[in-house]
Amino acid sequence: MKMLVTGAAGFIGSHLVDRLLRDGHEVTGVDNFSTGQRRFLEEAGRRGAFRLAERDLTDAQALKDLLPGMDWVFHLAANADVKEGLQHPRRDLEQNTIVTSNVLEQMRLAGVQNIAFSSTGSVYGEAAVIPTPETGPFPIQTSLYAASKLAAEGLLSAYAEGYGFRALIFRFVSILGERYTHGHVYDFVRQLRAHPDRLVVLGDGHQKKSFLYIGDCVEAILAAVRRRPERPAEIYNLGTNEYVEVNDSIAVITRAMGVAPQVKYSGGRRGWIGDNPFIFLDCAKIRALGWRPEKTIRESVDVTVRYLLKESWVLDARRVP
Amino acid sequence: MKMLVTGAAGFIGSHLVDRLLRDGHEVTGVDNFSTGQRRFLEEAGRRGAFRLAERDLTDAQALKDLLPGMDWVFHLAANADVKEGLQHPRRDLEQNTIVTSNVLEQMRLAGVQNIAFSSTGSVYGEAAVIPTPETGPFPIQTSLYAASKLAAEGLLSAYAEGYGFRALIFRFVSILGERYTHGHVYDFVRQLRAHPDRLVVLGDGHQKKSFLYIGDCVEAILAAVRRRPERPAEIYNLGTNEYVEVNDSIAVITRAMGVAPQVKYSGGRRGWIGDNPFIFLDCAKIRALGWRPEKTIRESVDVTVRYLLKESWVLDARRVP
Repeated sequence: MKMLVTGAAGFIGSHLVDRLLRDGHEVTGVDNFSTGQRRFLEEAGRRGAFRLAERDLTDAQALKDLLPGMDWVFHLAANADVKEGLQHPRRDLEQNTIVTSNVLEQMRLAGVQNIAFSSTGSVYGEAAVIPTPETGPFPIQTSLYAASKLAAEGLLSAYAEGYGFRALIFRFVSILGERYTHGHVYDFVRQLRAHPDRLVVLGDGHQKKSFLYIGDCVEAILAAVRRRPERPAEIYNLGTNEYVEVNDSIAVITRAMGVAPQVKYSGGRRGWIGDNPFIFLDCAKIRALGWRPEKTIRESVDVTVRYLLKESWVLDARRVP
Repeated sequence: MKMLVTGAAGFIGSHLVDRLLRDGHEVTGVDNFSTGQRRFLEEAGRRGAFRLAERDLTDAQALKDLLPGMDWVFHLAANADVKEGLQHPRRDLEQNTIVTSNVLEQMRLAGVQNIAFSSTGSVYGEAAVIPTPETGPFPIQTSLYAASKLAAEGLLSAYAEGYGFRALIFRFVSILGERYTHGHVYDFVRQLRAHPDRLVVLGDGHQKKSFLYIGDCVEAILAAVRRRPERPAEIYNLGTNEYVEVNDSIAVITRAMGVAPQVKYSGGRRGWIGDNPFIFLDCAKIRALGWRPEKTIRESVDVTVRYLLKESWVLDARRVP
């Protein structure tokens, strides 16, 4: 099939590109390289079935020439920096909500109707039900990032309902693994590489976190794509059935790095304003398709740390947006 | 207090302006008169405490000079035409979501932090729980209009959480009463005025509808504004504890007009794609503040029909957006 992946040079996008190419699909990858990494597409670039298009999706015509004939669009391009949202109050709206509208409109005009979208478990806000199912209580948004993703979800489902699109919405927990480029494991490894004797932790270390391994994430997306849909828009939580505390991941990180730092906590229940203290998703719906994660969270953290130490350019390369 | 009302020349906005002026507040009304009516502000215009500012809120600076010193912003300006959404796929995003972001950003920069916002009961989509409480199941959006309002709600709550705003979000059922300018009662009265012997009804006539009288709506908003808030963002359903079928409102309309038309149904469970078959809200939360609606739905329909017949310019004046 012919697949278009936005955010193709990103963490999840590049893994999805590789997986689709291995399955024999023709893949067009789109990225503006604002945070994406060309090196993540090196393997893809060696395959004839891959085409890279450098485009900025804030341009409402960016995909016009690429879309005709596509079977699926995997829209993963986004601003994924939750923490800095309050310093850039329009960024999430522009890069996540309006860009998603741009993608949907160009698809509609090109007659392409299948879209898979990367949302976030943080749309559940301060979830009243944990683990949270897709049908959990209607939430209050606690970050501009989550608000922008929820807005994009709404657009997808309205296009599904109104224009006959098939929309798959994935609410992720945090993803770990090779090519992971932001989040607390990244920050901790970067700190400990600079000074192995100390570690500054935002919050009290007891924040609970749920993670999913990137390979498991990509398999889950493809399991839902293969599924014959029951409704125009389907929402799937993606995560594991376990969680860890920040302190647990610190233990895995320090062991993998062979360091024993003094840990200093900034204190408080949350790492920062808008940081959700606990995202833990009920994933029974995606599991009902036969999918199971293969890695535990501790294994995912360990793989991630070893990747970051081996590919230390990733720790240097990240642009601060 | 100093109050700013966007959409001041609209149905709800103009009633709110009148009510705030009667309570002794200084009121600045903002409207671009795309659908608002100057005649709705005639009463307000006779009061010294009222100021009208003709502005278009798609301009991100539109409120800049008006906001300093305001106590509350009542953001009611919106595209409220749900039915035509699919013919204008960007309009709801631009006029509802992006405009709300513009309003919030200008408030943030001006140091104004209290906002009341008109959302819609249609954000519940095909509600799984009826009557639907504010904490009902997380919905799939069924119209671009509802998606744009949900997106705006998310922005309000993220601003409340992140910047210390106080945000009041009202999810309305359809509102009826004096100055009502669109919806099925309006369409039916307009049809029957043109040809009293026949009426074309979209759907099968059994669509259930819940309505609230405009005076009751305004009192509910003010009840929530007076309340000392428990959380930064509060969501209130606004409706009555009853509903009617479209056929019931037809009976009230035809009696009030003294006509006996032959009714022709287009058929189907819905009036149009994106028309929610049943919005019926659990309003226990707003009732807990002591508020009660004073008019029944049938009384509201009757008042509306009599108003439209008396002020028949309203039936002619509406611009088709």
